[in-house]
Amino acid sequence: MTADPRLADLTTPSLILDEQKMMRNIVRLADHAEALGVSLRPHLKTAKSVDVARRLLSEGVGPATVSTLAEAEAFFAAGVCDILYAVGIAPQKLPQVLSLRSAGCDLSIILDNAAQAEAVVKASQEASKPIPVLIEIDSDGHRGGLRPDDPLLINIGRILHEGGAALRGVMTHAGESYTVAGKEAHAKFAEIERAAAVDAASTLRGANLPCPVVSVGSTPTAHAARDLSGVTELRAGVYVFFDLVMAGIGVCHQEDIALSVMTTVIGHQDKRGWVMVDAGWMAMSRDKGTVDQALDQGYGVVCDETGKIFPDLILSAANQEHGIITRRSGSMTPMPDLPVGTRLRILPNHACATAAQHSHFNVIPADTASALMTWPRFGGW
Amino acid sequence: MTADPRLADLTTPSLILDEQKMMRNIVRLADHAEALGVSLRPHLKTAKSVDVARRLLSEGVGPATVSTLAEAEAFFAAGVCDILYAVGIAPQKLPQVLSLRSAGCDLSIILDNAAQAEAVVKASQEASKPIPVLIEIDSDGHRGGLRPDDPLLINIGRILHEGGAALRGVMTHAGESYTVAGKEAHAKFAEIERAAAVDAASTLRGANLPCPVVSVGSTPTAHAARDLSGVTELRAGVYVFFDLVMAGIGVCHQEDIALSVMTTVIGHQDKRGWVMVDAGWMAMSRDKGTVDQALDQGYGVVCDETGKIFPDLILSAANQEHGIITRRSGSMTPMPDLPVGTRLRILPNHACATAAQHSHFNVIPADTASALMTWPRFGGW
Repeated sequence: MTADPRLADLTTPSLILDEQKMMRNIVRLADHAEALGVSLRPHLKTAKSVDVARRLLSEGVGPATVSTLAEAEAFFAAGVCDILYAVGIAPQKLPQVLSLRSAGCDLSIILDNAAQAEAVVKASQEASKPIPVLIEIDSDGHRGGLRPDDPLLINIGRILHEGGAALRGVMTHAGESYTVAGKEAHAKFAEIERAAAVDAASTLRGANLPCPVVSVGSTPTAHAARDLSGVTELRAGVYVFFDLVMAGIGVCHQEDIALSVMTTVIGHQDKRGWVMVDAGWMAMSRDKGTVDQALDQGYGVVCDETGKIFPDLILSAANQEHGIITRRSGSMTPMPDLPVGTRLRILPNHACATAAQHSHFNVIPADTASALMTWPRFGGW
Repeated sequence: MTADPRLADLTTPSLILDEQKMMRNIVRLADHAEALGVSLRPHLKTAKSVDVARRLLSEGVGPATVSTLAEAEAFFAAGVCDILYAVGIAPQKLPQVLSLRSAGCDLSIILDNAAQAEAVVKASQEASKPIPVLIEIDSDGHRGGLRPDDPLLINIGRILHEGGAALRGVMTHAGESYTVAGKEAHAKFAEIERAAAVDAASTLRGANLPCPVVSVGSTPTAHAARDLSGVTELRAGVYVFFDLVMAGIGVCHQEDIALSVMTTVIGHQDKRGWVMVDAGWMAMSRDKGTVDQALDQGYGVVCDETGKIFPDLILSAANQEHGIITRRSGSMTPMPDLPVGTRLRILPNHACATAAQHSHFNVIPADTASALMTWPRFGGW
């Protein structure tokens, strides 16, 4: 394959997005959610891009999940109006939540403790506007949330429901599913998520509390789930682009990864077997998410300029603006000839972290006759 | 100490810069460079801020070091006119180098191989403008550069000098100095840097090649150097803010660290001893630079809202927008009471990486009567 001439003018390092691969990833999970009979609420924290959101969301309006109120503001301004802010609410952020809601955004929040619930009730009462809340359930000990059998669940449900907030349901995220590989293992975690969320919903309903929404998901469990009885919606985010962490646990193939970082060879240290490039951790992020997987990919897997993978070449070390490419330990393949000036592409360990280092996507359109597109990204809080 | 009311309106997470500490750090190295009789060429890759550059550089104009041409463009636009781009040049970037030089910026570049030298010669000839070059010397096997006794050194010097580029000198950076602790160890690396650069300069001069500039430096070696005979300039960057990596190897105290990330407590998992906060790796970066040091600081050391350090509390885990604070392993100090809504500050492992996650500094002015300042940062290439 020859290099895509549309990439010739890009400076390096640059973030490249393959629209065709992205669209395939989007359709894959949308089809699976439809087959399971649940609504899909994609997480926009990986993309942080209005252009991606337009291609990802039903009619561009949601439902969607975000990880910051800055995302909620930006996506609402672009027409997304059904948004779940899926990080436990800090009481100081409630005025901003109310302001978004007053502007017409159906923004819901999550929490897992009485102090938060009381702050939400107070804010709802003072504004005479019930803030919709999902109670976070801990399905796997990964992070926050209440165990489904925690007596606090009903207490918090009552604080919210009786205090004038809108108890909308429960949500959980099996972050531990990232630590296991293979569809069987992920399907087990999908069932762990489902069971925890459905149990918690039953507990609330048994106490005469409302629980219309039962929300679960992570990229591995969403793809592996076989039965989501009792669940109303599925969340996932990184699947839009995929990455080496997801490939390493078998959720996708490396060829499905839609993101890469274009870089240029700037030198060699032949005695050490090093090829020096101008993509360091500033371009790739410091994420070493594959370090504990069966195959450690360093800071990323190296491809040629067309995206063809060199299976044995990895970015094994990174300084701020320098990367060092080496052959994988134990490789029998010789180092290819990569003279100064050669352009390469690096697949990222973690799409969320790598994309966050860049102000925009350089998008290779599915249509080969179209020009490269620039899709801005945003960050911040 | 009571919380600074100027911080009350900041959302979390937010990047905080203590101007007083920063100015102390700046003066400390400026004084040391003066005592050593060398010029100081601060590296602006950590700050990426025009406001910081104005306080850091002699009369705001340089000399300065940068790690990207985007930095060169931004700082030149702000009046900095003596800039070293200290990443080996990619031939594709030479038109941009020439364009900055034509605009009046004395931009110099570095390289360590004949292919780069030939590209620079070609560009210099075509533009009839000699591009100034420092040859990168490898003093410690850390990254790029030629060993001072490599016969290629003279060859490359000749290609440049005879081909119409401007051979301006040599530069080296002892990146390995970060892996050792204590002033004695750093002083040894300072001498390794000095000896390598001075040897290389002698070799070039011995071959009747010009070598006016002999440039060395890294934050640890710059502070520990005792004698820089033969060196003309010193480079360092992270010292402006300092961080836990530098404190861990004894270059500064934790109290000297001028950067922190403000965060809010959003929950607890009491059985696991976890305090959940709204600063994850998006706010701190994925940098775990202290993991191989004597004291692993996780994703950062926790302070109260005023900046007072809890010596036994660290951000031990981080997801995208969630952080988990725990007591340090083996700690005998009980977990302090940190209710939901409590604001804390986290000291970063690596100032370059953490600052890069933020669009601006929230600056606490040295003058307590002044209002908080906002200093924009930039990124990109």
